[in-house]
Amino acid sequence: MISQSQDFEFELQSRQCRARAGIFHTPHGDIPTPIFAPVGTQATVKALTPAQLLEVDARLILSNTYHLYLRPGDQLIAELGGLHRFMNWSRPILTDSGGFQVFSLANNRKIDENGVTFRSHIDGSLHYLTPEKSIEIQQNLGADIIMAFDECADPYNLEYNRLALQRTHRWAERSLAAKTRPDQALFGIVQGGIFPELRLESAEFLRSLNFSGYAVGGLSVGETKDEMHKVLEAVDPILPESKPRYLMGVGTPLDLINGIQRGIDLFDCVLPTRLARHNSVFTRSGRLNLVNAGFSRDPLPIDENCQCYTCRNFSRAYLRHLIQAHEILSSTLLSIHNIFILLEIAREARQAILDGSFDTYANQFLNEYHPINEEE
Amino acid sequence: MISQSQDFEFELQSRQCRARAGIFHTPHGDIPTPIFAPVGTQATVKALTPAQLLEVDARLILSNTYHLYLRPGDQLIAELGGLHRFMNWSRPILTDSGGFQVFSLANNRKIDENGVTFRSHIDGSLHYLTPEKSIEIQQNLGADIIMAFDECADPYNLEYNRLALQRTHRWAERSLAAKTRPDQALFGIVQGGIFPELRLESAEFLRSLNFSGYAVGGLSVGETKDEMHKVLEAVDPILPESKPRYLMGVGTPLDLINGIQRGIDLFDCVLPTRLARHNSVFTRSGRLNLVNAGFSRDPLPIDENCQCYTCRNFSRAYLRHLIQAHEILSSTLLSIHNIFILLEIAREARQAILDGSFDTYANQFLNEYHPINEEE
Repeated sequence: MISQSQDFEFELQSRQCRARAGIFHTPHGDIPTPIFAPVGTQATVKALTPAQLLEVDARLILSNTYHLYLRPGDQLIAELGGLHRFMNWSRPILTDSGGFQVFSLANNRKIDENGVTFRSHIDGSLHYLTPEKSIEIQQNLGADIIMAFDECADPYNLEYNRLALQRTHRWAERSLAAKTRPDQALFGIVQGGIFPELRLESAEFLRSLNFSGYAVGGLSVGETKDEMHKVLEAVDPILPESKPRYLMGVGTPLDLINGIQRGIDLFDCVLPTRLARHNSVFTRSGRLNLVNAGFSRDPLPIDENCQCYTCRNFSRAYLRHLIQAHEILSSTLLSIHNIFILLEIAREARQAILDGSFDTYANQFLNEYHPINEEE
Repeated sequence: MISQSQDFEFELQSRQCRARAGIFHTPHGDIPTPIFAPVGTQATVKALTPAQLLEVDARLILSNTYHLYLRPGDQLIAELGGLHRFMNWSRPILTDSGGFQVFSLANNRKIDENGVTFRSHIDGSLHYLTPEKSIEIQQNLGADIIMAFDECADPYNLEYNRLALQRTHRWAERSLAAKTRPDQALFGIVQGGIFPELRLESAEFLRSLNFSGYAVGGLSVGETKDEMHKVLEAVDPILPESKPRYLMGVGTPLDLINGIQRGIDLFDCVLPTRLARHNSVFTRSGRLNLVNAGFSRDPLPIDENCQCYTCRNFSRAYLRHLIQAHEILSSTLLSIHNIFILLEIAREARQAILDGSFDTYANQFLNEYHPINEEE
């Protein structure tokens, strides 16, 4: 029997063309959408305290089932009161299904109809992940939003995507059937690589099941931006208006605007914190690498108009000094900025959609923004 | 001519036996004493933001002249408005003279009467540090409290200490003569190894010069606790009551109590942050290493009675998980706790001195505390 979760109403407040503004209600509070979710892979958003995440007003964070299952273990986290309490985060959490990580293990995993056998990247131990096991782990962790177990195929391989899609659909039904906790919302994941016809088929099939929300998975794995956009445009009219849509693993400033323009409500990505640890920051006009010697005496903040803690208090010269001196604080301060700017863009986009000015906002943003490479 | 600094009045509020409670007034605010100063070697207390230092109510931090001179350079910091502004710390700062670091370079330095030639640990470049140069650098940095340039000798070598002491005294006079900024307090440094008679001589000589405060240097470098205590007891009656006394490089909970009992007002040490990065924490009953597997399912905080951010919000199990997962956040959370407990002990000791109950407080503290090794 499919569990119903009345806690998880999605309130669509406004729509401008495809762009949507809404509120997703969860047991740990409301999530205003569009929203960006910082990633806390191992039950911590790298280099940040929960207090710092509250200060940037993060409303939802993501954590990884694969990593937490292996270390410290989902049962240990359940014993200690669940993931919210374990990591001291009282706002909503989303956990992925573990599928993406397991499929990334390449030579260290074997797929069968029932699930995936894989070796731990930590100690080489053998594990078997199935839809039922993934849901069990996610129920132990206790996130507000949990994900169906899916198969992530090479986005360009049509034959493999056809096969993988059928299995992903069977696994979606099994994930739904395995779920017992009423205080968690289960999202289905649309797959199908870069092939719009497969994406349509997947969105239609999943719509027929009673998920609390829908993710678009298997993107941001090497395809072009144009291919990604075509997929989003294909699934937008199929997915139900009354459920949130989540674009997995995507999150540069440009991706946010492009995704929101195509009907996406939730985003997550490791990029803001990973770039921070590699000395790189987002600004409204593109990316800066603060290692650049040109910043060594620069008294300006990363972005003069940014209101984050880092930009209100520290010069580029100081940040560059921290980087040169290999100080941990650079990761913290750059992560604060990179997460803040993505949250701020989502907040601005949301307000613009509510005001009916999103087109103007998006055009202005895109005009000012100069990505430095394909990844941007 | 010796500069007078009227900003730097030391108000002795209470004395119980040798223990003192006071207030040291500086241009960046009052320092209640006894006090512990966290160390921010490279213009950052490792793994902490200034906001986190304010939250533990740090009143004074230390930064290192040697490191900042080499990188990013004292002139660069001066151009950017001085060290307070550079690192965004508006409360008092103390800089050391660079002497200790230079003398620690062992084979990479050569001493003459005028100063010390040394090679940078960063790029091997050659530098020459003199009392005048040290004061010039410290004036560029702009800390509230600056230190005379001194020679740190092997504490057990009597002959070398006799020679080094005379040079340290000549350098003390030159440091005073070189100082021109009226908004900085210059402290003299008592040397003399483990030899009480040399320490007495040094304290008497320096007392005759008009320093704003007096440090006891060359300790915590391998001598026993008993030897350290004898030195403190020797200099206590010589140093003027009306000036603050600073025990350099010393700072475990036990050292604080023992130092306060012997008339010390200021302490600094890298230990709380260094231990944190090695997974070790201070508690009221000794030190814990959180790597211990016994903590893996432990729902308690580091110290149930501690009111720091870490203890109010995180279990030992979570902290151990962060350590096992090599997450930066463990350094941050453990540093917050270790600094907080030292600041808290200094606050408690101060209150006890003001209340006339310091003896009881110190005895109770020493009874409950179980150091795990000589270093503790």
